[in-house]
Amino acid sequence: MPALLVGALVDGKPNFMTTAWGGIANGEPPMISVALRHSRYTLKGITRNLTFSVNIPSIDLVKAVDYCGITSGAKVDKVEACQFKVFYGKLDNAPLIEQCPINLECKVVHIMDLGSHSLIVGRIEETHVSQSCLTNGKPDVNKIKPLIYITDPASQYQALGEVVAKAFSIGKEIKSQEQDCSAEVPEVKE
Amino acid sequence: MPALLVGALVDGKPNFMTTAWGGIANGEPPMISVALRHSRYTLKGITRNLTFSVNIPSIDLVKAVDYCGITSGAKVDKVEACQFKVFYGKLDNAPLIEQCPINLECKVVHIMDLGSHSLIVGRIEETHVSQSCLTNGKPDVNKIKPLIYITDPASQYQALGEVVAKAFSIGKEIKSQEQDCSAEVPEVKE
Repeated sequence: MPALLVGALVDGKPNFMTTAWGGIANGEPPMISVALRHSRYTLKGITRNLTFSVNIPSIDLVKAVDYCGITSGAKVDKVEACQFKVFYGKLDNAPLIEQCPINLECKVVHIMDLGSHSLIVGRIEETHVSQSCLTNGKPDVNKIKPLIYITDPASQYQALGEVVAKAFSIGKEIKSQEQDCSAEVPEVKE
Repeated sequence: MPALLVGALVDGKPNFMTTAWGGIANGEPPMISVALRHSRYTLKGITRNLTFSVNIPSIDLVKAVDYCGITSGAKVDKVEACQFKVFYGKLDNAPLIEQCPINLECKVVHIMDLGSHSLIVGRIEETHVSQSCLTNGKPDVNKIKPLIYITDPASQYQALGEVVAKAFSIGKEIKSQEQDCSAEVPEVKE
């Protein structure tokens, strides 16, 4: 699961919480979903403003990421404690963290009460990528160095590991075997 | 993003497709969401049966994972091509892949048309974990060895990497600094 910092303006102040329950929800238009517990202070700002941000932290931000997951903005000023440099882009109420290499500004499309959590689907209105994390003008995951959150056997953050295979490529080995087989059939029959 | 194999019974036959657009949607009751393009053959089975499966593959299944992402069940029998051993659990129409260490049986709770994709939210009715991937009776990510799908700078599958820090722990370093500060304030004033 990806470690994400979800941001909102709550009671006039920027606040951020950590969640690993999120992912891409749609391609065109681009949308993302995050699941937040009903009691979350950040959720209060999202339901009021109908805007939020998703900030993708690098491994060097792990201390702040964990802090934003174990504290509540109702009690502490997380921006001050974590020394986040906050900026705004296209949307007024979606605070963004400068230290995070990727920032997504989102407008709420759906909020669904699923039980313990609300699933929030947001349309990504704008994306910011740190210049230092680009390669040939595109975001480079090896420079972004995202954090992966693991629950079992222990709750911990891990880094991305080695490349296993190329996508849209390695699978063709199965495909071509199949084509070979069908190509061989007429020969066998003859 | 996690590489997931979504399964459904389509036209009476088990079929599986690869998606990386998915994540946990709720805690209690446990739910998962996956985003599938409208044209997907697997989606046909999900909307008909209102049941599906999510299978988490290990890195040694990378060839099959990629194959299931670049082919359509309308044209090929992916189970045969990938030599998947299919089994069923609690739900009749949720085919599961024996080779995948984690299998989730899901009942559809919501299907949302978001544009190019349908976001499917499913309640996890049953979870299967391979015995060989347990440590002290709990799933162990180091044995599961999930595949992580990356798009930039190249589309590829990567493994999990090194442990960065313990969760619900490293963040306390910030917390305790803050507590120290407030404890120091009265002393400074005196």
